[in-house]
Amino acid sequence: MQKGQQSPLSYLKAAYGGEIVVRLKNGIEIAGRLRSFDDMMNLVLDSAKERDPHSKEVKRNVGTLFIRGNNVLFITVEE
Amino acid sequence: MQKGQQSPLSYLKAAYGGEIVVRLKNGIEIAGRLRSFDDMMNLVLDSAKERDPHSKEVKRNVGTLFIRGNNVLFITVEE
Amino acid sequence: MQKGQQSPLSYLKAAYGGEIVVRLKNGIEIAGRLRSFDDMMNLVLDSAKERDPHSKEVKRNVGTLFIRGNNVLFITVEE
Amino acid sequence: MQKGQQSPLSYLKAAYGGEIVVRLKNGIEIAGRLRSFDDMMNLVLDSAKERDPHSKEVKRNVGTLFIRGNNVLFITVEE
Amino acid sequence: MQKGQQSPLSYLKAAYGGEIVVRLKNGIEIAGRLRSFDDMMNLVLDSAKERDPHSKEVKRNVGTLFIRGNNVLFITVEE
Amino acid sequence: MQKGQQSPLSYLKAAYGGEIVVRLKNGIEIAGRLRSFDDMMNLVLDSAKERDPHSKEVKRNVGTLFIRGNNVLFITVEE
Amino acid sequence: MQKGQQSPLSYLKAAYGGEIVVRLKNGIEIAGRLRSFDDMMNLVLDSAKERDPHSKEVKRNVGTLFIRGNNVLFITVEE
Repeated sequence: MQKGQQSPLSYLKAAYGGEIVVRLKNGIEIAGRLRSFDDMMNLVLDSAKERDPHSKEVKRNVGTLFIRGNNVLFITVEE
Repeated sequence: MQKGQQSPLSYLKAAYGGEIVVRLKNGIEIAGRLRSFDDMMNLVLDSAKERDPHSKEVKRNVGTLFIRGNNVLFITVEE
Repeated sequence: MQKGQQSPLSYLKAAYGGEIVVRLKNGIEIAGRLRSFDDMMNLVLDSAKERDPHSKEVKRNVGTLFIRGNNVLFITVEE
Repeated sequence: MQKGQQSPLSYLKAAYGGEIVVRLKNGIEIAGRLRSFDDMMNLVLDSAKERDPHSKEVKRNVGTLFIRGNNVLFITVEE
Repeated sequence: MQKGQQSPLSYLKAAYGGEIVVRLKNGIEIAGRLRSFDDMMNLVLDSAKERDPHSKEVKRNVGTLFIRGNNVLFITVEE
Repeated sequence: MQKGQQSPLSYLKAAYGGEIVVRLKNGIEIAGRLRSFDDMMNLVLDSAKERDPHSKEVKRNVGTLFIRGNNVLFITVEE
Repeated sequence: MQKGQQSPLSYLKAAYGGEIVVRLKNGIEIAGRLRSFDDMMNLVLDSAKERDPHSKEVKRNVGTLFIRGNNVLFITVEE
């Protein structure tokens, strides 16, 4: 199965420049435009917003945000 | 015992394209189609759904989901 | 002492195909047939059952289960 | 996408000498001038201030502060 | 000081086949005969018993027990 | 920016023999004279004192103190 | 500064055979004679005693004690 051979991180590459939502281990949810990431899943997001994970209501705008990868729980790509 | 020689990760390979259920350390349960994984157990799931671990009721649809491997507790393959 | 020279993991090998009980760090207890494991103590169990650690009552059958090794507290071999 | 190829840490380089805000895993928020960092995200901040993460009120001035990288949750660059 | 040059793990070797008591990070105390260990402090104990850490009362017999090393707090050798 | 090229740990070197204050992850605050440190941020402090992090009141004198680096949250240099 | 060049672990060497007090991350305090340690800060103590960290009252004598290094918070050398 060809598709299966791609690594998980290669799927994130397709999201460069697009909107993603990052859920951190401590429950915080951040939405923003993916500008950079690495193997540790360190992330840089542009126009980042902290939102309520349930209501999706924006709690504050944080501009460009650097996230240390070990805090990441999961990531979704907005379509 | 021949079967015993296969690594645990090689069993996940057989699930490519099929439905799996991932229980995270924080108790969240995610069901979805396995699209990719690596040695750290980073996972990409398609058509992912967050469900209640007890009632299996779907709480929200999250589309394509990237999970950082260190958060994984265990994985079952749906048959 | 010859016996002492064997590594702990080599003792698990003797359990291939047999029943083991895995206690996870979060208190969950899983019983099942050991199908595969590796150095990280990632495990694959067949006919896995989640049980109450005290009463040993089966709470649910989970079929084939993949456990990420860093969650393992200890393992007993059923005789 | 050229921009995507830059590593997350390279974005921090652009902030040398400028004001950043560091949120630690335990909820503490530190603002200060970025003087040095490394791959582990160990940081040295000048004129560092501990602030309330919500009101941004300064709780105490701590001068030059060395932060061990594994405590970092995320970093924003003040503009 | 000659004695000081021996590594901590080499002291455990002297306990092969003898009774040890293992205190786990989560407070559980296990007594048993040391059959095997490695550098990670993964342990195999024979005739293992879970005991109350204060009263030393045996709570249950668990037979041969495999303990994942990262859960170990400390170990005493019974004399 | 020349200054930016120095590693965070090189800033600690300037504090050798001087007073530093170490905040540990569990909230304990230790003041003392920096005698030695390494890449893991293991530290040896002379004339170390445990103090209240808020009132700075000395709770006890502990003499020479060895701190395991992974417990360090941040360090300030007293001037 | 010559003294500054010695690694933190080399200071522990001077304590071989002498009394040390080890505070563990979970708050337990152990006093005993240092017999062996390694780079991970795994420790072997002789005539070890668990004491109350505040009153220093001995709670129990544990004889020879092996401590897994990752549980160590800090160590003081008794003079």
